[in-house]
Amino acid sequence: MVLVSTRNPLNIGASARALANFGFARLVVVAPYDVAFREARSAVGAAPLLQKAEEFATVAEAVAGCGLVVGTTSVGHRQLQHPIRRLEYGARLIRRGLATGPVALLFGSEKFGLSNEDLSHCHWLMRIPTTGQDLSMNLGQAVALCLYELARDPKAAEACPDKIRAATAGECEQITLRLLETLEHSGYVNPVTAGSTDEKVRRLIRRLTIPGRDVPVILGMLRQILWKVRTGGQE
Amino acid sequence: MVLVSTRNPLNIGASARALANFGFARLVVVAPYDVAFREARSAVGAAPLLQKAEEFATVAEAVAGCGLVVGTTSVGHRQLQHPIRRLEYGARLIRRGLATGPVALLFGSEKFGLSNEDLSHCHWLMRIPTTGQDLSMNLGQAVALCLYELARDPKAAEACPDKIRAATAGECEQITLRLLETLEHSGYVNPVTAGSTDEKVRRLIRRLTIPGRDVPVILGMLRQILWKVRTGGQE
Repeated sequence: MVLVSTRNPLNIGASARALANFGFARLVVVAPYDVAFREARSAVGAAPLLQKAEEFATVAEAVAGCGLVVGTTSVGHRQLQHPIRRLEYGARLIRRGLATGPVALLFGSEKFGLSNEDLSHCHWLMRIPTTGQDLSMNLGQAVALCLYELARDPKAAEACPDKIRAATAGECEQITLRLLETLEHSGYVNPVTAGSTDEKVRRLIRRLTIPGRDVPVILGMLRQILWKVRTGGQE
Repeated sequence: MVLVSTRNPLNIGASARALANFGFARLVVVAPYDVAFREARSAVGAAPLLQKAEEFATVAEAVAGCGLVVGTTSVGHRQLQHPIRRLEYGARLIRRGLATGPVALLFGSEKFGLSNEDLSHCHWLMRIPTTGQDLSMNLGQAVALCLYELARDPKAAEACPDKIRAATAGECEQITLRLLETLEHSGYVNPVTAGSTDEKVRRLIRRLTIPGRDVPVILGMLRQILWKVRTGGQE
């Protein structure tokens, strides 16, 4: 990742932290505004990464070893002569590029973004699909989004294993019966309409998707309440 | 979005900016460390949104009107008793939830995340799939990622209409409190561990996806049982 003319060292630190969060190791800084950026406290947990950030005077030198150079933009007012790809698609192309060699991802300054000169080093541009078109993103947040999308496992969105076992029908019925007994002892059930109460309660319990591991706790609660309702606490 | 016990006002401002970036309008703050957070300079372009942020003293009050309450976590050291969903899948569930009512997305403090008490108000948790497992994310960056993922595909929300309104957080809390009272009167609660029972029961109730229309029936049952447990049937 290449940060060009960044003004606020806190943003460089936050970018370092995001790199560490998503398993990237290389931070390159071009002409930073604050030379003391390596001390940025915002690099929580990523101080070593920030310490060994490489520093260059120009974009040309910074990207010299890269097979693919991608600029980021909020698509502001100026005319852009580059293809612009949405983050999701761009990230896929970058992952593909990374299979053959280093890729540089450029971020411009907080105020002005990448200059036309900077952009001229890029193969294409990537933009984050924000809703508020006129409003640029915070640099550290934009960096985090791009790295998140790069590190994303494309298959993750599809596979959604939800490993919580639901209560079985038998367990639901146990709960139902014990609840009915409690309600009966509490005077909730009208003898005339008892049959329909049974069904009402049975359906209600099925609508609560009870996790299997909660069944013993629920039965335990009901057992205790039932004991109290039955005996008034005197055995 | 609900920010709980946030320490650094710059993070509140950055969160406001991210909300504006992705077309969300509502910011809720619970017990912020710095009362002057509304002046945070980091809310570039989102000052009006920050100005009208709602402030509450407790999580319970902040989420009372919401049908779904989701906590965020970096999955650290402590034992979590909630289902944890990956960001991509969780965001899809949240979009579905948004089709039927307000959803609260909770972020804890920079240092400690959400407390166990905070978590007990949540239906489930969402985690950002970072690579460095031990390293938490910057709060503003985590917020931006979640909102980006939520705003990702607007069509997904329409595709799965789920017309059953879930019980609101306020309704869940009503049920929780009445159940706790019943358990207490039944001798289920050990005075020494009463606090942890509270949280246990609160989490349990959130794991049951209670349909909104069943709330009056459940409250009615509990009222009757409670009356019996309290009086033994003699008024």
